[in-house]
Amino acid sequence: MRHDALSVGVDAGGTTSRAVLTTADGECIGYGRGGRGNPISAGVDLAATGVLTAIEAALARSAGALTDVSVVAVAMAGQRAGEGEGDWLRARLTAEGFTGILTFESDLMATYSSGSAEDFGYAVVAGTGACAVRVEGGRVEATGDGLGWLLGDRGSGFWIGRRVVRAAVRDLDGSGPETALTAAALAQLGITADAVQSPSRPRALERLVEAVYAMRPIELAALAPLAFVDDPVAETILRTAGERLADTFAEVLRGPGPVVIGGSVLSRPGLVREVFAQRLDAEAVDLELRPVTDGAVGAGLLALRAGGIPVSEQTRVRLDGSLARLR
Amino acid sequence: MRHDALSVGVDAGGTTSRAVLTTADGECIGYGRGGRGNPISAGVDLAATGVLTAIEAALARSAGALTDVSVVAVAMAGQRAGEGEGDWLRARLTAEGFTGILTFESDLMATYSSGSAEDFGYAVVAGTGACAVRVEGGRVEATGDGLGWLLGDRGSGFWIGRRVVRAAVRDLDGSGPETALTAAALAQLGITADAVQSPSRPRALERLVEAVYAMRPIELAALAPLAFVDDPVAETILRTAGERLADTFAEVLRGPGPVVIGGSVLSRPGLVREVFAQRLDAEAVDLELRPVTDGAVGAGLLALRAGGIPVSEQTRVRLDGSLARLR
Repeated sequence: MRHDALSVGVDAGGTTSRAVLTTADGECIGYGRGGRGNPISAGVDLAATGVLTAIEAALARSAGALTDVSVVAVAMAGQRAGEGEGDWLRARLTAEGFTGILTFESDLMATYSSGSAEDFGYAVVAGTGACAVRVEGGRVEATGDGLGWLLGDRGSGFWIGRRVVRAAVRDLDGSGPETALTAAALAQLGITADAVQSPSRPRALERLVEAVYAMRPIELAALAPLAFVDDPVAETILRTAGERLADTFAEVLRGPGPVVIGGSVLSRPGLVREVFAQRLDAEAVDLELRPVTDGAVGAGLLALRAGGIPVSEQTRVRLDGSLARLR
Repeated sequence: MRHDALSVGVDAGGTTSRAVLTTADGECIGYGRGGRGNPISAGVDLAATGVLTAIEAALARSAGALTDVSVVAVAMAGQRAGEGEGDWLRARLTAEGFTGILTFESDLMATYSSGSAEDFGYAVVAGTGACAVRVEGGRVEATGDGLGWLLGDRGSGFWIGRRVVRAAVRDLDGSGPETALTAAALAQLGITADAVQSPSRPRALERLVEAVYAMRPIELAALAPLAFVDDPVAETILRTAGERLADTFAEVLRGPGPVVIGGSVLSRPGLVREVFAQRLDAEAVDLELRPVTDGAVGAGLLALRAGGIPVSEQTRVRLDGSLARLR
């Protein structure tokens, strides 16, 4: 089998990398996963291994080799289109016989492209962090939030997780209402509640505070799933998260277009997405929500485009469908 | 001169330790300063040196020695009354000839006692962190907030500093109003604003975000003083800080009593204190605000009390006045 016009798109994430192998007409013929793929957080050696592992797993599905691949497009956070030399990855690809084009793309463009091949539209991502972008002419033209856990990321997993702990703290110290989040947070952090009191504070509160400050702040995002529970305090947290994400989206909104939504907080059906969608309806512009699970389809589409192949909605739907059968 | 009934109170802080030497009737006859005095943050050796340096400087003022001192009371954060063995400090004091009573007290009791010798009352402290306590029978009976920068400390220096940066960020990315805080924050962080733009973000914004994440989060408190400026955005931040501190105070409020206020945010005249005071007026209970600069007077008073000497408002006023003449 000849593969001389194959493309590889890689969605290189902070914990997992996903590679998508396609033919020139957007048929997905291989899919593979690898480890951490972002050189900023994982270091260049580990990231290159993560990306290579994913690519090789994708090639194995169709008995292909890197010599058959004409384009590799890697999408990752902190990367702008066309930026970066990529020496950390190029050397490893070359050693495997790759002689084609290597490009880097932003992870937000990959998320967007997973849900839309249109020139104009939006992506709103709420996972550990949160941001919104407006895409024009196939590139990110405006960004809302994405400022990290300390300065922004409003409505993100960190934002929700921090409020889950705050609600538990306010329950325990009596300054806020009772909530099911308290028992859930204590359980997740391995704290057994007991009745012993310090002179002015419950013991469980002291242990909760100690446990949180022993974590890296960003790890509070792991408590976000606890908020998806039937509880009035949790409901307020999720509703406010939806509002904040809608605020962030409003910062980049300029006319009708598809709205691709991604990340564990927003791609999960529930109150956050409902409230976000209600606000979009209220904006009274023609907006269509398109949930995506990751940037794999988009990375594949960006790879085709980097190889000079025109990409349409039809191409995206074909790639999406053929990838779904392989996953 | 015989000093056999001398007492030493030490306000052992995270950056400075202050020692107050008094006679049995509360006349301050020595005052000295030393370095970091909290063993939790500074380590036991450095903390012991900080406390000793302060005590020796206080003794030098009256040509006294530790052999003349019957009580040393050390007030510090994270310390409950009567808790802790204090071996880290006792050995060093003994080596200098000290044979008396060594006690430890909470820094909040020292702050309270700097402004009140009454059995019942309140202390509200807003420096880098923020909390409120209710004192009953000479000990802390209830605590509001004091939960640290990630979970609470609402209205604190960190809380204000983070909002100063947030306001600058929202000014720079166009999602919030223009504010004088932007230029001030960029200047304090050594960032020269320029007009160069990335595709979707001003360069100054990117550098600001990078600078903030390169700091330890708590260091944002250093930006709090920037908010004390004539600017509508800054005014909102300070007003909200005052409201949050009043909320925290409301958590421990139970009847009339003196309200001792301390810490750089609340002891500084300005909007935070004004709004806080207005809210107290609105609570319609008889409350008297008493600003204090630190816990030195209170530590001196706690030392007298630890030596079995009855302490009255008159004693406190005498200690306060005699210390003021020495500082």
